Amino acid sequence: MSERKVILSGMRPTGRLHLGNYLGALQNWVKLQDEYQCFFEIADWHALMSDYKNPSDVCEFGFDMACVWLAVGLDPERCVIFRQSDVKEHLELFFILSTITPLGWLQRCPTYKEALENLKESEEIRNYSFLGYPALQAADIALYRANFVPVGVDQLPHLEFTRELVRRFNHLYKTDIMVEPNEILNKVDKLSGTDGRKMSKSYGNTIYLTEEEKDIKKKINSMVTDPARIHPTDKGHPQVCTVFNYQSIFSEDEKDEIEKKCLEGKIGCVECKKILNEKLSGLITPIREKYKEFKKNPEKVNNILEEGNRQAAGQACKNLAAFKKEMGYG
Amino acid sequence: MSERKVILSGMRPTGRLHLGNYLGALQNWVKLQDEYQCFFEIADWHALMSDYKNPSDVCEFGFDMACVWLAVGLDPERCVIFRQSDVKEHLELFFILSTITPLGWLQRCPTYKEALENLKESEEIRNYSFLGYPALQAADIALYRANFVPVGVDQLPHLEFTRELVRRFNHLYKTDIMVEPNEILNKVDKLSGTDGRKMSKSYGNTIYLTEEEKDIKKKINSMVTDPARIHPTDKGHPQVCTVFNYQSIFSEDEKDEIEKKCLEGKIGCVECKKILNEKLSGLITPIREKYKEFKKNPEKVNNILEEGNRQAAGQACKNLAAFKKEMGYG
Repeated sequence: MSERKVILSGMRPTGRLHLGNYLGALQNWVKLQDEYQCFFEIADWHALMSDYKNPSDVCEFGFDMACVWLAVGLDPERCVIFRQSDVKEHLELFFILSTITPLGWLQRCPTYKEALENLKESEEIRNYSFLGYPALQAADIALYRANFVPVGVDQLPHLEFTRELVRRFNHLYKTDIMVEPNEILNKVDKLSGTDGRKMSKSYGNTIYLTEEEKDIKKKINSMVTDPARIHPTDKGHPQVCTVFNYQSIFSEDEKDEIEKKCLEGKIGCVECKKILNEKLSGLITPIREKYKEFKKNPEKVNNILEEGNRQAAGQACKNLAAFKKEMGYG
Repeated sequence: MSERKVILSGMRPTGRLHLGNYLGALQNWVKLQDEYQCFFEIADWHALMSDYKNPSDVCEFGFDMACVWLAVGLDPERCVIFRQSDVKEHLELFFILSTITPLGWLQRCPTYKEALENLKESEEIRNYSFLGYPALQAADIALYRANFVPVGVDQLPHLEFTRELVRRFNHLYKTDIMVEPNEILNKVDKLSGTDGRKMSKSYGNTIYLTEEEKDIKKKINSMVTDPARIHPTDKGHPQVCTVFNYQSIFSEDEKDEIEKKCLEGKIGCVECKKILNEKLSGLITPIREKYKEFKKNPEKVNNILEEGNRQAAGQACKNLAAFKKEMGYG
């Protein structure tokens, strides 16, 4: 256990998980379980920062998320699955780090500026906690002395922020107890929403990891294809086709064949969608069925979470005590 | 216990306590113990916000402060003395409140603007935690559902901030579980520093509550009196004299007499200082002696703090659970 390098990653329980979450994180997490000591966090404090108007949704989505994680293959025998708000040390280290976090670092954080830009109309995130988002994330990572964080390119500024804060802590208290984390970069093919726009819950253009058979079919059938193609025998343009964007990711073995046929007008959109439907059903069905099993056994899931919380708290408590000792605090 | 109204108050352990702390708070606290259910907080998280470079000082000052509190007459049988960082619920409620605290409220807070103004030269407090100071204070108060907070006039904006945040919580979650606290205004005579300037640790012009006999004398002897007065028989101007500022507060029974004699040139500064010395010695000596007893018995003080922490945590835990229930969280 102690020989392996440590990984911390997490997700905000702000909604049902979809294919984007699978490609961008979960698929990767499942592979990392054996090589690393993995801590996977249900980041409910992070979710509350934006969803404070609906705290009960955060709770429900959190439990739901745990069920999906287990269904895709996160194995509590091989990784630690825990809920952030159940491990009290997160907020304590967050506070300690926030005493040494210059306001300017947070105000200049590119993701913060971007969020403000995107949500100009909304006052929701102009609250004190949201400004501290990167510092809470830094606390999450530092608390487990994580060596690696699996991230997408868009998360790199936050990870750099964590490294800076870790260095500042070590420098201020003349120590090297805190670990500077490195990224495990997840290079994923960009998956668009079913309508061709950016995938987003608010657009309603996602396919959930627990989507029902009939809904998968419905969503695929409604997908936008090459608008210039009227008849199945017209030559298609796969590069502008949302269905082909999905084929290239989920039908890797057939995508070259499909592309060729589409370009030559030898496969129609209906047939193409049928193939995609089979592929996605093949991926989603076992996840959905396992998910339903877990949902039917909340006690089992809660036991897994309790055990995960216990393990996470054990590590967190030990590390936090060591940090405080280095600070000369307490 | 449950019939009495609840009071929460606290002090930041950032240095040794002095006469200003006695007049501004402690004298009053001692009187409040019987009429109210009092929670007195060693606000070490608040201290760490500005003194993060010296965490061990915060710990030492915190313990020292507890000894002085006990020495002036706070009675653990009649009030709860506890350390903020030992009651985990403070940071949890702070976080919850910070998700609903608009950034603008904090940025516009007069004490924050004043602090930035005063400390222009220093980067120390331009950190994330310090901006949240009033929200942490609000959490401290709300956590015990305190009805009253004994404050000086300068603290009124913070208390108003707490009330606004409490109202916002109650409004958002359609509840009345959180209590809007009212002030118990402590109208104190303004005590200046021994050099006539504003009393401040950084000026070295304070008289400590645990000051040694010889140091009280030394500090009083060095006090600035009416500069226009050369000989003891010259007529004095008590209103511009620092010693008379002290006499008017600490020699209440004799102050009219002293004022009259000074105006008439019938009492010299040396004699006047001797009277003040007797008064202050009379006040400080028993405090200092009791303080020394407590310092010699750290185990006793730690037991008192542990019991206080236990009682505070009991109340805090119960209230926080009720708040979260109203939010539908957890």
